Amino acid sequence: MFRPQIKVLDCTIRDGGLINKWQFSDDFVRKVFLALSRAGVDYMEIGYKSSEKYFPRSENGAWKFCTEDDIKKIVGGFDTKMKLSAMADIGRIDPEDIPPKKDSVLDMIRVACYAHEVDKGISLVHHCMDKGYETTINLMAVSKVLEKDLDEALEDLSKSSVPVVYLVDSFGAMYSEQIHYLAKKYFEALPGKELGIHAHNNQQLAFANTIEAIIAGINRIDATLYGMGRGAGNCPLELLLSFLKNPKFDIRPIFEVIQEILIPLKTEIEWGYHIPYMITGILNEHPRSGMKVMAAEKLPDLKQFYEDLRDGTPLD
Amino acid sequence: MFRPQIKVLDCTIRDGGLINKWQFSDDFVRKVFLALSRAGVDYMEIGYKSSEKYFPRSENGAWKFCTEDDIKKIVGGFDTKMKLSAMADIGRIDPEDIPPKKDSVLDMIRVACYAHEVDKGISLVHHCMDKGYETTINLMAVSKVLEKDLDEALEDLSKSSVPVVYLVDSFGAMYSEQIHYLAKKYFEALPGKELGIHAHNNQQLAFANTIEAIIAGINRIDATLYGMGRGAGNCPLELLLSFLKNPKFDIRPIFEVIQEILIPLKTEIEWGYHIPYMITGILNEHPRSGMKVMAAEKLPDLKQFYEDLRDGTPLD
Repeated sequence: MFRPQIKVLDCTIRDGGLINKWQFSDDFVRKVFLALSRAGVDYMEIGYKSSEKYFPRSENGAWKFCTEDDIKKIVGGFDTKMKLSAMADIGRIDPEDIPPKKDSVLDMIRVACYAHEVDKGISLVHHCMDKGYETTINLMAVSKVLEKDLDEALEDLSKSSVPVVYLVDSFGAMYSEQIHYLAKKYFEALPGKELGIHAHNNQQLAFANTIEAIIAGINRIDATLYGMGRGAGNCPLELLLSFLKNPKFDIRPIFEVIQEILIPLKTEIEWGYHIPYMITGILNEHPRSGMKVMAAEKLPDLKQFYEDLRDGTPLD
Repeated sequence: MFRPQIKVLDCTIRDGGLINKWQFSDDFVRKVFLALSRAGVDYMEIGYKSSEKYFPRSENGAWKFCTEDDIKKIVGGFDTKMKLSAMADIGRIDPEDIPPKKDSVLDMIRVACYAHEVDKGISLVHHCMDKGYETTINLMAVSKVLEKDLDEALEDLSKSSVPVVYLVDSFGAMYSEQIHYLAKKYFEALPGKELGIHAHNNQQLAFANTIEAIIAGINRIDATLYGMGRGAGNCPLELLLSFLKNPKFDIRPIFEVIQEILIPLKTEIEWGYHIPYMITGILNEHPRSGMKVMAAEKLPDLKQFYEDLRDGTPLD
C-alpha cells in the first residue's frame, strides 16, 4: 500500500509510558528517537504534556510532562525531518502551560478527549492552533459511545477548525467491520478533514484494523515499536512499515532498536496479548480490570473473571 | 458473525505438535479433547496419520501416528458430538496404513499437499473417501505459487470429488487483500465445493485473515488454543469463538483449559509473535530459518538476518 499522503506517528514513549509511568532513561528515549528518525517515521510522540501541579514529578518520569528542557536533552544537536508531538489530556493540562510554538521544539499537540467532552477538546485544539502548533483530536473509547452522541460529537468537530480527527479503538474491541463503518461515518461527517487511526491489540487486531483503516482512506497512522503500550499494546511499527511500500521508510533501524532495547525491556515489563486483556477487549471494557489481574501475584480464575466482567459483577 | 454453516476445527495437538514432536502427555490431550468438546467445537484434529516405517516412535510422540489405540485411550468412554480428524501429508503415509472408517474412531482425514503434487493429494483423498471418511485437501504455501500453477491445481481439484479445499497461508505472509483475492479465485474455480481457511500468525494477522475469510464466505475454519502452533502459531481459538456469535459455542471451557495447561506450557516451549518469524512472514519465506535463530542460544543480529533472507544469502 504505497500512498504518499500516509503519515506514520510512533507513540512508543507516550503510550508505552502508561505501563511504567514514563520511567525511561534518556538513553532509551534517545535510541528510540534516532531509530525512528533514521527509519523515516514522520512523527515521534515523545510523551504527554501535563501540568506538574496535577501530577508529582516524584511519581512520574519526564515524559509525563515533556518540558522543553526534557525534550532538548534528547533531540538537541540532531538534524532530522521527523516532527515531534506530545499528547494533552483534557483536564490534565492548563493551557497556559503550553508555550508558543516559536519557543518549543514540539511541532504538534494531539488532544485526547472523550465524546462527551469534545467541546473542551476543540477549545484546547483551537488554543494550540493559535499558539502555532499542528493539532489533532483523538476521540477516545468510541466503541462505548451511543450512535446519537457520536454523531453530535462529529457534528461539533465538523464545525471546528480541528484539522485531523482520530478514530480510536481504546479497548481493542473493534473488528474490521466496525473500522470500515466508523471510517465511513467520520469521513461523511467531517468533510475536508484528515482522519487518523489508533488501535489496540487486545484481540490481536491492532495491525489488521490499521490496515483496514488505511484501505478505508485514513492517512494518519499510529504505531509503537514492538507494539509496546498499555495492556495488550498497539499496532507494531515494524509490521506497519513493512506493509507500507513507501520507499521513504527503512525498516532496518527499527529491527536494531527493537533488538537492542525493546526485547530486553519486554522481559522486565509486560505488554501484549494475554487472556485478561483479550477478555476486556471482547467485552468492550476498559483494560483496567485486566491490568489489575495481570499485576496480581497469581492469575485469578480466568473463566470467573470473564463471567464477572460480562455480568457486571464488581471485582472488589 | 452467526452463520450456521460455519464449522470450527481445532488443530492444537496436530499443529502444536510440530513444536515438540507431539510429546504431549495423554492427560494433556484428554484435557484438550474435553474442553473442545464442551465448548461445542465441531472437529478436533488430534494429530498426523503417518507411517511408522518413515518416522521412528523413539523420536515422535503418539500424535505423529494417531493409531486407533492411541486415540481410543483419549476419547474412549466420552460421549460427544465433536468429530475427530487427522492430517495426512503426501509421501509420509502409506494409504494401506489408513484403516477403513468402520474400524476407526476418526471421522475425517485432511490431506496436506503442495500445488505441484495436487494430483497425489487428490488420489489420497479419493482413497480416503472410498474408505468412508470425510475428507479435505489443504493446499499449502500458495503464497509462493505462480498464478498459472495455482490455476492448474484448482482446475484439477474442480474435476475431482474432493469436497473441501483449504486456503492455507503457511508462511503468515498474506494481508486481507490476498485473502479476499484468493477466496474469490477458489470459489470461482471450485463450484459446489466448500472452502476452508488455515492462517499463521507471523504478522499478527492469523485471526484477522480468518475473519476476512469468513466475510468472504469461507465456512471451514482452523484455530488452535491460545494460538499454539509452529513458529508464530495460528489463529487463536478463543478469539475465533468470541467472534462467532453462534450460540452452540461456549467459550468458558476454553478459558479453563488455556489457564490450566496452555499458559504453563508457553513458559516451557515458545510460540507466537517474534521478530524472526515476523521477518520470514514479511519476506514470504518458510519459517524454518526463523525457528533456527529462535532456537539459538543467543538471538543473532536481526537486521542482518532480515538482509540475508531478503537477499537470498545462505544462512550457513
